[in-house]
Amino acid sequence: MRPSGRAPDQLRPVTLETRVNRYAEGSCLIGFGHTRVLVTASVEDSLPPWLRGKGQGWVTAEYGMLPRATHTRGRREAAAGKQSGRTQEIQRLIGRSLRAVVDLKALGERQVLIDCDVVQADGGTRTAAITGAWVALKMATDHLVAEEVLKQSPVIDQVAAVSCGIFEGHSVLDLDYEEDSNAEADSNFVLTAQGGIVEIQATGEKRGFARTEFDQLFNLAQSGCAELFRLQRQAVEA
Amino acid sequence: MRPSGRAPDQLRPVTLETRVNRYAEGSCLIGFGHTRVLVTASVEDSLPPWLRGKGQGWVTAEYGMLPRATHTRGRREAAAGKQSGRTQEIQRLIGRSLRAVVDLKALGERQVLIDCDVVQADGGTRTAAITGAWVALKMATDHLVAEEVLKQSPVIDQVAAVSCGIFEGHSVLDLDYEEDSNAEADSNFVLTAQGGIVEIQATGEKRGFARTEFDQLFNLAQSGCAELFRLQRQAVEA
Amino acid sequence: MRPSGRAPDQLRPVTLETRVNRYAEGSCLIGFGHTRVLVTASVEDSLPPWLRGKGQGWVTAEYGMLPRATHTRGRREAAAGKQSGRTQEIQRLIGRSLRAVVDLKALGERQVLIDCDVVQADGGTRTAAITGAWVALKMATDHLVAEEVLKQSPVIDQVAAVSCGIFEGHSVLDLDYEEDSNAEADSNFVLTAQGGIVEIQATGEKRGFARTEFDQLFNLAQSGCAELFRLQRQAVEA
Amino acid sequence: MRPSGRAPDQLRPVTLETRVNRYAEGSCLIGFGHTRVLVTASVEDSLPPWLRGKGQGWVTAEYGMLPRATHTRGRREAAAGKQSGRTQEIQRLIGRSLRAVVDLKALGERQVLIDCDVVQADGGTRTAAITGAWVALKMATDHLVAEEVLKQSPVIDQVAAVSCGIFEGHSVLDLDYEEDSNAEADSNFVLTAQGGIVEIQATGEKRGFARTEFDQLFNLAQSGCAELFRLQRQAVEA
Amino acid sequence: MRPSGRAPDQLRPVTLETRVNRYAEGSCLIGFGHTRVLVTASVEDSLPPWLRGKGQGWVTAEYGMLPRATHTRGRREAAAGKQSGRTQEIQRLIGRSLRAVVDLKALGERQVLIDCDVVQADGGTRTAAITGAWVALKMATDHLVAEEVLKQSPVIDQVAAVSCGIFEGHSVLDLDYEEDSNAEADSNFVLTAQGGIVEIQATGEKRGFARTEFDQLFNLAQSGCAELFRLQRQAVEA
Amino acid sequence: MRPSGRAPDQLRPVTLETRVNRYAEGSCLIGFGHTRVLVTASVEDSLPPWLRGKGQGWVTAEYGMLPRATHTRGRREAAAGKQSGRTQEIQRLIGRSLRAVVDLKALGERQVLIDCDVVQADGGTRTAAITGAWVALKMATDHLVAEEVLKQSPVIDQVAAVSCGIFEGHSVLDLDYEEDSNAEADSNFVLTAQGGIVEIQATGEKRGFARTEFDQLFNLAQSGCAELFRLQRQAVEA
Repeated sequence: MRPSGRAPDQLRPVTLETRVNRYAEGSCLIGFGHTRVLVTASVEDSLPPWLRGKGQGWVTAEYGMLPRATHTRGRREAAAGKQSGRTQEIQRLIGRSLRAVVDLKALGERQVLIDCDVVQADGGTRTAAITGAWVALKMATDHLVAEEVLKQSPVIDQVAAVSCGIFEGHSVLDLDYEEDSNAEADSNFVLTAQGGIVEIQATGEKRGFARTEFDQLFNLAQSGCAELFRLQRQAVEA
Repeated sequence: MRPSGRAPDQLRPVTLETRVNRYAEGSCLIGFGHTRVLVTASVEDSLPPWLRGKGQGWVTAEYGMLPRATHTRGRREAAAGKQSGRTQEIQRLIGRSLRAVVDLKALGERQVLIDCDVVQADGGTRTAAITGAWVALKMATDHLVAEEVLKQSPVIDQVAAVSCGIFEGHSVLDLDYEEDSNAEADSNFVLTAQGGIVEIQATGEKRGFARTEFDQLFNLAQSGCAELFRLQRQAVEA
Repeated sequence: MRPSGRAPDQLRPVTLETRVNRYAEGSCLIGFGHTRVLVTASVEDSLPPWLRGKGQGWVTAEYGMLPRATHTRGRREAAAGKQSGRTQEIQRLIGRSLRAVVDLKALGERQVLIDCDVVQADGGTRTAAITGAWVALKMATDHLVAEEVLKQSPVIDQVAAVSCGIFEGHSVLDLDYEEDSNAEADSNFVLTAQGGIVEIQATGEKRGFARTEFDQLFNLAQSGCAELFRLQRQAVEA
Repeated sequence: MRPSGRAPDQLRPVTLETRVNRYAEGSCLIGFGHTRVLVTASVEDSLPPWLRGKGQGWVTAEYGMLPRATHTRGRREAAAGKQSGRTQEIQRLIGRSLRAVVDLKALGERQVLIDCDVVQADGGTRTAAITGAWVALKMATDHLVAEEVLKQSPVIDQVAAVSCGIFEGHSVLDLDYEEDSNAEADSNFVLTAQGGIVEIQATGEKRGFARTEFDQLFNLAQSGCAELFRLQRQAVEA
Repeated sequence: MRPSGRAPDQLRPVTLETRVNRYAEGSCLIGFGHTRVLVTASVEDSLPPWLRGKGQGWVTAEYGMLPRATHTRGRREAAAGKQSGRTQEIQRLIGRSLRAVVDLKALGERQVLIDCDVVQADGGTRTAAITGAWVALKMATDHLVAEEVLKQSPVIDQVAAVSCGIFEGHSVLDLDYEEDSNAEADSNFVLTAQGGIVEIQATGEKRGFARTEFDQLFNLAQSGCAELFRLQRQAVEA
Repeated sequence: MRPSGRAPDQLRPVTLETRVNRYAEGSCLIGFGHTRVLVTASVEDSLPPWLRGKGQGWVTAEYGMLPRATHTRGRREAAAGKQSGRTQEIQRLIGRSLRAVVDLKALGERQVLIDCDVVQADGGTRTAAITGAWVALKMATDHLVAEEVLKQSPVIDQVAAVSCGIFEGHSVLDLDYEEDSNAEADSNFVLTAQGGIVEIQATGEKRGFARTEFDQLFNLAQSGCAELFRLQRQAVEA
């Protein structure tokens, strides 16, 4: 039995509220159960120096966690004077995941900056961030189309992410914090609606785990993402 | 005429939603018009080294702004590797303001850390932060009383803050961003419900301004804070 | 009775020695009692990037304290690797205060950098710094006029600053360290010779204080600054 | 055809030279083709503060690249003043990989610090680092057994790592730099000799890739690691 | 001919004003011509962690330059966020030089921190700093003797420093900035009154220079330091 | 007797292996006994900003020590976030030493960056680094001549360095770590093959030392460098 009483292949309730920031070109507040991430997509005309004049755009992401997003207060990274290795790892993952579904040439010489700020954390913040980031990105680029800056959307596929893990010997979908901190294996799958793998990260937390177990996690992730793609479409069409 | 159509002595609509974070001992989301600040109060048993063993507690604050809280995206301070002078100035002000209404001995050897994160900014973020911070602090200390950690509340008065300024030659209450960026003078008043001055910061932005003008700003602040004290009480009693 | 035996409205002996640095375009060593601040004004042709090509100049300030300026040695900020929040707050205040009395267009596309280094501290270092900075700035810009770089002085008014506070229940002018560290309220007034308010910062250190008390502090500050304006004129005319 | 002429399932020549540092408790220089990583294992009696008094030890790793390890010189991280996100990601991965095969309680209250410094880079530096790190760690802990500090080895399994990817449409083992920079998909597998998965990281660099392709990469990794386990045993027994 | 008209073996006028800081246990303002360095010696009871409980004391130094000490304003190191390599090199030199003439066991478990701040620079700031630092150190330790904290002075010899160089083919003593920036060779000698060498740093700036030339520089340094030792004694006895 | 049994004027076995890095324009691994330093010379077309357009090139150096190069592991400077004062002092010295034997105009508007990484340390790392750096620099510039980028070598002399010291009352050449950490005086001489002094650094570690002793150290250094010049020529001609 899972602590939450969920079935092994059951997502937490996923909520997606859009247009939560009056300035950003795209924005949403995504919830995976008690985990809540505020995502904004900002369009800028400037590019990082190493990309200028190459006839293409860029999509990048930053990630942060409010100090009291967690059970006990964590240190504010701005006060500490640097981003932790974990933060950098996550924001690099989010950026790569989004670029996999964007035609950067079609975006033109501009940049979309995605900010993912975790307001409350109960496991799965990076997967929630990626799933919500696609929504904010899609809205921001649709805005560029509506404004006739772009002729058509440079977003060529959907991308979503979910975690799976082995908890008390069973493969389960979408770990919450209690499961995550006791899991034998933990994995994040970033997949596209057209069936492609964008990123897999799987870790045996307490022991190496078997390839057959890994295959079960992969199956769970594919069914979980199918549901997330449906919710993403619903959100951007609302 | 003010851009928003408000009367000179009229606050923007002020909203105060409490219990917005499931982990923090106290929390609220305060809105002054489009300005929205998420405030949490975290109680910790450890004290900063220089205060240990002195038979008293401490209240301190940190302040941050999400990168896209503003019209154009600002740099994330954690990525920049330091907090700006403005950020430090504001968080020092919030901490001083709260300590002015807390009996630190009665708090005992523990610390309340207030985090004020600006989710959306339209002027007056520091005054909204102070006003909301008192609510979060009060809830966190009431929680300590309810848990019988403390016998009675160490919060001995209310504190709230509001900005006033001279806009197009007129003294007005609670500047929004449009007014603030064109004001001839700008001030922040931090006052207590019992009528005390905790902090005044007044700046002539374009010119020195006259003492008679300053007195008008002070009058506006006193009436504005009276309304804020009422809303604070309503929020904590809800 | 004040520890120094001064009358409530009495400044400490103020000394202003000019031309104390053979390289700087303007310089002075200002003393408020035992507090001594070395101020230099440096003229540079380059502007900060965000001001270039806008047909105007800039005045900015940096502040520092020698490690043994104080009773017990403080940490050297260069060794610590960052300026404290207090330092940043003070140097921002000095810059704003000076810009309030300079016609930045008349200054042309150049920058005056004011360095205020506290050689010995006995309270009131920021007000001494502002008062001395005006003298150094005036001398540096007079130098530009003498060199025929500018046709006339861009300095359009005098600015000076003084602290006032409530010590043992009485309002007093120009707090020294002993008074400052025990004051019930502490304030800094930055005023112009033409009667304008440039900046007011007032803090209730131990309790909120009353508006009538604030008005007394303001009166003391106005009379103290009148004396400082006289001494500034004397110094630059010497 | 691969640029190097290798078969799809062929590793580069792997060399493992041990005892290359006269001070370290364990050390080796590992080569995967032109990639060369110098690894040392240092035993220290002190533990990180958060682990003290818990009756267990710790294994952690640091990773660095000499500035001219690469085709064009990169910036020295010590001079830049911080480790890149990539560096932190890699050293966290190395540490996790090693801890998966160590009984931390059996290690006792001491720490093994693994330093992996890339002397020359031609792709696969992180997998070479992990594979060599196990050798250095094993030697260092065998040294503790030989010195009778420990009764038996706390290293309970072997761990090795290899990269696989899709290059010009084909799944290939152990990418060199030329393949890596043009791969359609890139993955790193960290596996144990007993058949467990410690870590999988797979990324679609240019497109999402298919689950059938992923399964081919996994097969290649398993056969590649089998060879690496043999070479590790040979090295520690030499 | 030297730009200043001095003879090759002639020091600039050296001034030594003591008791220039009312808080420091020892202090002086030393001038070598236009070069002026403010030196304070602070006695603290705490020791750096690696020295505690070893039955000895420590003497260390920090060095800084006010931004406008030089012809054109330099960047403030506290604002830059770090001390330059040059600054660190100099402060390490000052510390070593002083420790060479102090019996650290006789000093007891306390620390003397020397702060050398260059108020105006015209070449030779490090040698002036060392020469003045000895005076401040001597006064601070004499103060400990006078206070009966120590039975006798732990300062067992005098130390002073002077620069010499080859300017337009001639060996000259005590370079000023104009000479220094055009010298073919530049050297600093730190010597003791009893005839010992504490430190020699000699650099061929434009070419390697000959051993016979080096010997001439050494001769000049010995005669220059003899004069400095006399002035130091005069200063501390005043 | 020296701990190593060497004669007072005897160098440790010096080894010089060239072409140890397949990417660098010049490289060598130099050994002075157990001390081993890996040196690469990288040619870049870009110059530091302050040198651009002046018709000359630049040679600069960076120095680092692998964490376990020493008996006990030292902290990784990249992880610490800054280079120590010692590191900066050494890399400045290496750069100055090399520039003394290069015609920077003949080098043209390009830069040679020397990286000296200490793989194993047993005293004398800075002198080994300088001696090896000349070899790498010479090879890199010979490469530019071979590629017809330059008509002739801009390297106009050889430079090498060796340490000398006073150990148990005797002057000895090329201190190893055991001697170095107990020496009464320690010195580094950087000399050219044509007999010029590039740099002398001499320090009395425990006492001031006499000029006659210094002269003995100088004699040892000259004979030691003569041998190093011969080995350098042999290495580049191999």
